[in-house]
Amino acid sequence: MLDLIGTFAFALNGALTALRATRLDIVGVITLGMITALGGGTIRDVFLDALPPATFLDWRYLAVAAGGGLIAFLTGHHLERINGTINVLDAAGLSLFAVTGALKAVDLGFGPAQAVIVGAITGVGGGTLRDVLIRQVPSVLSSGLYAVPALVGATVVVLADVLDARGPVAAIGAAAVCFAIRMLGVHFDVNAPFPPGERRRER
Amino acid sequence: MLDLIGTFAFALNGALTALRATRLDIVGVITLGMITALGGGTIRDVFLDALPPATFLDWRYLAVAAGGGLIAFLTGHHLERINGTINVLDAAGLSLFAVTGALKAVDLGFGPAQAVIVGAITGVGGGTLRDVLIRQVPSVLSSGLYAVPALVGATVVVLADVLDARGPVAAIGAAAVCFAIRMLGVHFDVNAPFPPGERRRER
Amino acid sequence: MLDLIGTFAFALNGALTALRATRLDIVGVITLGMITALGGGTIRDVFLDALPPATFLDWRYLAVAAGGGLIAFLTGHHLERINGTINVLDAAGLSLFAVTGALKAVDLGFGPAQAVIVGAITGVGGGTLRDVLIRQVPSVLSSGLYAVPALVGATVVVLADVLDARGPVAAIGAAAVCFAIRMLGVHFDVNAPFPPGERRRER
Repeated sequence: MLDLIGTFAFALNGALTALRATRLDIVGVITLGMITALGGGTIRDVFLDALPPATFLDWRYLAVAAGGGLIAFLTGHHLERINGTINVLDAAGLSLFAVTGALKAVDLGFGPAQAVIVGAITGVGGGTLRDVLIRQVPSVLSSGLYAVPALVGATVVVLADVLDARGPVAAIGAAAVCFAIRMLGVHFDVNAPFPPGERRRER
Repeated sequence: MLDLIGTFAFALNGALTALRATRLDIVGVITLGMITALGGGTIRDVFLDALPPATFLDWRYLAVAAGGGLIAFLTGHHLERINGTINVLDAAGLSLFAVTGALKAVDLGFGPAQAVIVGAITGVGGGTLRDVLIRQVPSVLSSGLYAVPALVGATVVVLADVLDARGPVAAIGAAAVCFAIRMLGVHFDVNAPFPPGERRRER
Repeated sequence: MLDLIGTFAFALNGALTALRATRLDIVGVITLGMITALGGGTIRDVFLDALPPATFLDWRYLAVAAGGGLIAFLTGHHLERINGTINVLDAAGLSLFAVTGALKAVDLGFGPAQAVIVGAITGVGGGTLRDVLIRQVPSVLSSGLYAVPALVGATVVVLADVLDARGPVAAIGAAAVCFAIRMLGVHFDVNAPFPPGERRRER
């Protein structure tokens, strides 16, 4: 259930981001919403040798993702107002996907390092695919705290598993940590460090 | 046999499109021709867990795709004249790939929604990969009727299968529907709907 | 061991290339270093149906790739001076990856054409993914001799296998041939042929 909410939030957010960046028809908007929502899980399942992708097999994910894209297409020019809500939903999707991605890797017997990496990829992969398709440098590579909270959330849930403290509490706690870091980063405009010797950001 | 013609048409068309968009050497032209021709089938086989990709295992596909790219490299500056022919071949490739992609999904036991999506991906995937590599916003996302005929053709063949009317007639009919919609779209410059509230297309 | 050196060289080189091309934070630099170093092997393992990717399962590859990216992040503004060294390490990585990629395909029972293609993809795949993410037309498509030495090196090692002359000598010889062609290409600024009828390169 939470997973479907995350999928919907990512589809809505992804389609809106794409709409702002470039000119798209209805096929493009819905496709980019679906890619944002389902791309991270697809890359995850390639790395975990868990093909066909779980989100592709379950029609509910496909329907929810397509629905999010369609709503963005129909109401995109009104949704600017609720930007804050979109940010919150996006952070929720990121947290959920990072935690569930890492747990899936643990369940399939992968090591802690692999689980953390796969968790982060699940969280940021869909948005990265979208950015490549609309010719943006993926925001995860260049600005804001986006990969960092995903890595932290995945690390927390993997650590809990290593320490035999696995369970709903650990998963929700890890997602909450990821969510909190992401929202603090958005609010205070925090960035990950830039290379030494480079001038301060101007844009 | 028809599949090989589609592969050749896609390789030729893909390499020509790449040549027009950016500066490429012989390796680049042939590579982009092969990616256009074989990329959709590769993505399809990832989604269907049918790796290694069928087009990669069969040397005839590799040879035909490389040959199409080579011909585009050698004769690209003459081929502008037969643009109409290229459009027809490309529409034929799209129709064929959408129908065979959807049928492969049905054969492997996937549901109707999955089969339609995979059919469309098979048709448009190769061109999308090419456009990403030459830094274009994939045309499937932004202009003309390209994904729509692929979706319709895949839907027709999947519906025929659901209704127990599967066979060569259904496959050829579905491909013909896709082909007709695509060619009508090219001829009358039809576009999929753009988001409401947006001004009419100017470019 | 040699494989790890190649991974490190690719991570260092990939992260430096990314740093020069666009503005990135620490996450972006390390991610692009890892993608350059591990991306080719990941694509190889998709084509060979050898998932999960070998480089992803072995923490040493992950650590070495992340380390190369981190060093590039910390010292990027000093490393310009040792550009020659970077070129040598990159050519070494290319040679090694092309040969080991082709051998892996042969070991898994693929045909000669498939092995050569997979070897070349292993060598050039990581850099291509990086270039797509930082919005460059992949250099492998447009300039210098990069894919050609990889194809030649992979062909030599596959031929040796076909002729029952497989062994460390053949592998090292094939890598040396690839390395020599690449370094000669860099030194004399050789390019693969451009399409006929096109004016000489100006940029």
